Amino acid sequence: MERLRWQVVAVATLGLALALEVLPSVLHWLRAGRRQERRRPPRREVLFFPSQVTCTEALLQAPGEGPSGPSGPPAGCPCSLPHGESSLSRLLRALLAARASLELCLFAFSSPQLGRAVQLLHQRGVCIRVITDCDYMALNGSQIGLLRKAGIQVRHDQDLGYMHHKFAIVDKKVLITGSLNWTTQAIQNNRENVLIMEDEEYVRLFLEEFERIWEELNPTKYTFFPQKKQSH
Amino acid sequence: MERLRWQVVAVATLGLALALEVLPSVLHWLRAGRRQERRRPPRREVLFFPSQVTCTEALLQAPGEGPSGPSGPPAGCPCSLPHGESSLSRLLRALLAARASLELCLFAFSSPQLGRAVQLLHQRGVCIRVITDCDYMALNGSQIGLLRKAGIQVRHDQDLGYMHHKFAIVDKKVLITGSLNWTTQAIQNNRENVLIMEDEEYVRLFLEEFERIWEELNPTKYTFFPQKKQSH
Repeated sequence: MERLRWQVVAVATLGLALALEVLPSVLHWLRAGRRQERRRPPRREVLFFPSQVTCTEALLQAPGEGPSGPSGPPAGCPCSLPHGESSLSRLLRALLAARASLELCLFAFSSPQLGRAVQLLHQRGVCIRVITDCDYMALNGSQIGLLRKAGIQVRHDQDLGYMHHKFAIVDKKVLITGSLNWTTQAIQNNRENVLIMEDEEYVRLFLEEFERIWEELNPTKYTFFPQKKQSH
Repeated sequence: MERLRWQVVAVATLGLALALEVLPSVLHWLRAGRRQERRRPPRREVLFFPSQVTCTEALLQAPGEGPSGPSGPPAGCPCSLPHGESSLSRLLRALLAARASLELCLFAFSSPQLGRAVQLLHQRGVCIRVITDCDYMALNGSQIGLLRKAGIQVRHDQDLGYMHHKFAIVDKKVLITGSLNWTTQAIQNNRENVLIMEDEEYVRLFLEEFERIWEELNPTKYTFFPQKKQSH
């Protein structure tokens, strides 16, 4: 009887020991399924420019615009440009991933392809807000007028200093920032960099900066004739 | 006798179970000391500009230059500017942390404070290499000539496009990049951003870009009279 009791204690202790060892792995395995979505590595990409000139039509065609007719997907483009990936196509892809919101804070914006991408997102119902520099928004080829005509909200500074940021925030999750102004000259000829970062902390800080500037440049606060006002 | 044997088995099993539970924690604790340096969270900072104008003399004084005499530390500066932290002082601190190497890839560089910081690092024996844009390096107030006079290696492009990067790499460990040109105008008046990132992957990619440009702009490969050469 006594022997049996000790046998039970020994077996129970061994069982407990094994259970304690195995438990964390089992729990980890059970949780893994639920975490799979979250554990996808966050997006981190660096684009360097000048970008090879490639055809970006396939990316930019709205449904029904393709050569294959109103209902089908866009067919292969027959133009003579290369059709592979380039820094510009990667930048376009990162922007076109937007489903809910896009904040743009851009010193200069004249690239027709990037302009079309923003208009496409607007047509898809993505909420777009643009901040730009007052001196550069009316230059030849600027996309700002076209965006405003399409009904996209644009605010601009009134300062002597430049609104020199060049960043975008996609769905409040991905920050796109760097040295690149959104002009064809910069994309095709300059040495430039763009970081694409799915990073909560950086997105939060840049979004705060965006909201700060957006509020500061609220048109109701514009000073249209500062000198006249001062003379009152 | 039989009972004693089972007692021993039970106690041994319990001991083993406890040991297996405790072992990982002990190992972790033993390794922690060695890892302490590595586990310091990597540096991540975002600076927004315009920067408040503050006095940066305390940061920029070489040993022996301070008002307290050749041997003592620099004493408090008596000037009327605020002496707190600013985006510029943080940028200076990030640069002045360099101990071994500093790569600079800058479109425009005319800020006297940033120029002094780079010269100070050169005096301390930090290996400095500068890449800049040919059109902007001879502008009024450019620091490039002063850096060259001090013996710092500078290379510049010869392209029609701009060398428009604005990044620095400190000790091959920290990347400093953003929209900011290193000019007083930009620092004090523009809306700008600078990321300071201790990030292996980004540093590697930007360092590769630096080395690529550095080799491409090797003076032995300059084409001084391209049109004359073509006529041969």
